[in-house]
Amino acid sequence: MNDHRRLGRELGVFDTDPLIGSGLPYWAPAGAAVRKAIEDYVHELERRGGYLHVNSPVLGKRELYERSGHWAHYAEDMFPPMEVGGEEFVLRPAICPHHALIYRSRQRSHRDLPLRVAEIGGMYRSELSGVLGGLTRVRAIQLNDGHVFCAPEQAAAEVSAALDLIEAAHDRLGIKAARYRLSLRGEGAKFVDDPGMWARSESVLREVLKERGREYDEEAGEGAFYGPKIDIQIADPAGRESTLSTVQVDYFMPGRFDLRYVGGGQPDSSGGPGSGGQRDARPVMVHRSVVGGIERLVAHLIEVHGGAFPAWMAPVQAVVLPLSDAELPAARDLLRRCLEAGLRAELAAADRGSLGARIRAHRLVPYQLVVGPREVASGRAAVRLRDGSQAGEVPIEQLAARSRPFG
Amino acid sequence: MNDHRRLGRELGVFDTDPLIGSGLPYWAPAGAAVRKAIEDYVHELERRGGYLHVNSPVLGKRELYERSGHWAHYAEDMFPPMEVGGEEFVLRPAICPHHALIYRSRQRSHRDLPLRVAEIGGMYRSELSGVLGGLTRVRAIQLNDGHVFCAPEQAAAEVSAALDLIEAAHDRLGIKAARYRLSLRGEGAKFVDDPGMWARSESVLREVLKERGREYDEEAGEGAFYGPKIDIQIADPAGRESTLSTVQVDYFMPGRFDLRYVGGGQPDSSGGPGSGGQRDARPVMVHRSVVGGIERLVAHLIEVHGGAFPAWMAPVQAVVLPLSDAELPAARDLLRRCLEAGLRAELAAADRGSLGARIRAHRLVPYQLVVGPREVASGRAAVRLRDGSQAGEVPIEQLAARSRPFG
Repeated sequence: MNDHRRLGRELGVFDTDPLIGSGLPYWAPAGAAVRKAIEDYVHELERRGGYLHVNSPVLGKRELYERSGHWAHYAEDMFPPMEVGGEEFVLRPAICPHHALIYRSRQRSHRDLPLRVAEIGGMYRSELSGVLGGLTRVRAIQLNDGHVFCAPEQAAAEVSAALDLIEAAHDRLGIKAARYRLSLRGEGAKFVDDPGMWARSESVLREVLKERGREYDEEAGEGAFYGPKIDIQIADPAGRESTLSTVQVDYFMPGRFDLRYVGGGQPDSSGGPGSGGQRDARPVMVHRSVVGGIERLVAHLIEVHGGAFPAWMAPVQAVVLPLSDAELPAARDLLRRCLEAGLRAELAAADRGSLGARIRAHRLVPYQLVVGPREVASGRAAVRLRDGSQAGEVPIEQLAARSRPFG
Repeated sequence: MNDHRRLGRELGVFDTDPLIGSGLPYWAPAGAAVRKAIEDYVHELERRGGYLHVNSPVLGKRELYERSGHWAHYAEDMFPPMEVGGEEFVLRPAICPHHALIYRSRQRSHRDLPLRVAEIGGMYRSELSGVLGGLTRVRAIQLNDGHVFCAPEQAAAEVSAALDLIEAAHDRLGIKAARYRLSLRGEGAKFVDDPGMWARSESVLREVLKERGREYDEEAGEGAFYGPKIDIQIADPAGRESTLSTVQVDYFMPGRFDLRYVGGGQPDSSGGPGSGGQRDARPVMVHRSVVGGIERLVAHLIEVHGGAFPAWMAPVQAVVLPLSDAELPAARDLLRRCLEAGLRAELAAADRGSLGARIRAHRLVPYQLVVGPREVASGRAAVRLRDGSQAGEVPIEQLAARSRPFG
């Protein structure tokens, strides 16, 4: 059973320091490489899915979170405000308010919709130190977030398209969902009190789950404060569940931020926002995260793969192993060719031990390139895979192509 | 004369919102694309330069900045602390303390040096709102930062290697330095009071500048609180200077954080840290930023290039322009091939105006791919460059290769 907290430190994925603080791990070099590979993959997946990327600051004014509803419904999880120049700034508890402002920054027409905005950025939670640990309970989260601003009649299709992205990413990452959960409103002031709004959002999510033939469980009290969610649950080796990917339909924030678009039909005599052919219509916000917080994702990937990550996200993709010092010049040349082909590669020379010892030390590296006298003569490398099998002589460019997330 | 504040908004590079706050611009889609292209380029440049990348949180405990000396020498520029669970957290004013902790997290040997650690991450300054504006005076900075931990005798070579990276990056970015500045200690409590330490650092920087035959000016009072700097100054169209890239030699923080490495010589009878062949030696920290803060860099690039960015960093690298609706299917096919080749490409169909109007609207896009009946027949595209010249029929793969920062 792999515990990501132990294995993650051993592999040099992350570490912590008391001077930085609890719940604030840093990504050590191996982890930063995995994180960048995943972020680049998700960025490209989203780009192909029609998303525009933005980067917004991790701060906002207190008034932003009063407007979004976080102040009223979520304050206990937020960091306290900081006063600078007579104004109060807050480390953001979520990215959606920033994206709502970005939508609002220009006049939007029905021809611009759906407008899909994505970002991989920081968000912050003032979790109590007792529950913090490893990469799963943290105070700083690098979240893969995105918001689709669409006409009400486009919402179901956008929820479904988000699930397409999620399922494609899980497949590529080697993740299996434990179950789908429809997370609903619970009792109390944590949830916005507007039963009609909740019913509308729920019906969109149920419709999509039904259409896709997905089994799911319902759970009251697990929704966001502004609306219900489809949560894709993962389980750790001990069977403890957590939420990774999520899709949410939100009729609340578009109203709070007075988001509008110019509809395609005739001007409405009332002049007010609404759906359909009115002059001035209100978009729906579909909140979605394809892979969730990168910390939680990588914790799960460490446990699922036991550190033997798929080649495209492995911290080191290829290790060059000269049999003896006689092959060192050829090995250095091979390393250079690997690096130029875009592989994350390193050299483990004979001064680091016997070939067997070096193979054991690099047993998690997908491609182990052994260079002996025969390979020096042929100018190629014998590729050993981490399951011990021999892949023969494979051109470097082909190894590099196999090590990319998109074919 | 290009003012980045006006042009940057027009081009969709950045924008601001009063609910986010002054000095906290966000990167709109075109800007986020430029930023990612630059960050990926610098990441790769550093990787080839032997750097290991990390990601550290934007927060640290108050004690971290007391230890680093920021609390004593830099507090007026810092955001106020936030209290969570009885501890005080501070938005970081610099990235170096985190990297010092990462160095300290493992025992290091002389064989591990120079250890080069890099990160592109957030840092924060509580600048007064009166001086804030555009991308140049901001409260949240995305800094390209890095620290080389090395033996004292390696410091000059590492300073020189950092200048190599800086000069390579400037060349690729199309930037010309206004001048090199040797920034020295000034009067007052802002600077650590240790004349011998300042003299040692200065002599390393002067030696490198002399060896490289670089002219430079000296300026007292512009150094970091912990040591002198080589600052590479840029100038805006009005001639106002600011610092972009920098290299610093620091003997102060290694002592504050008690950084050590196991030296290569005989054990020293004193047992204390020092240089040379002692058992337990103190490394030097070379702080360096290849391209500075990404905000200031992009502001400068907007002004230098007037928005006509080099192809590898252009927000849109190729626009597909069908002559009429008859060529729309062929244009869509060409767009798909561009996207698959990794180009940031878009389609401007005939419903967006005459060919001349569409070319004007996309005049800053490096490759304008006109698709007429002849191109439909040949299956290729006529490439028009933004200076109006014709590049003839260029295979897409070749356009994509020209649009990468590394050949």
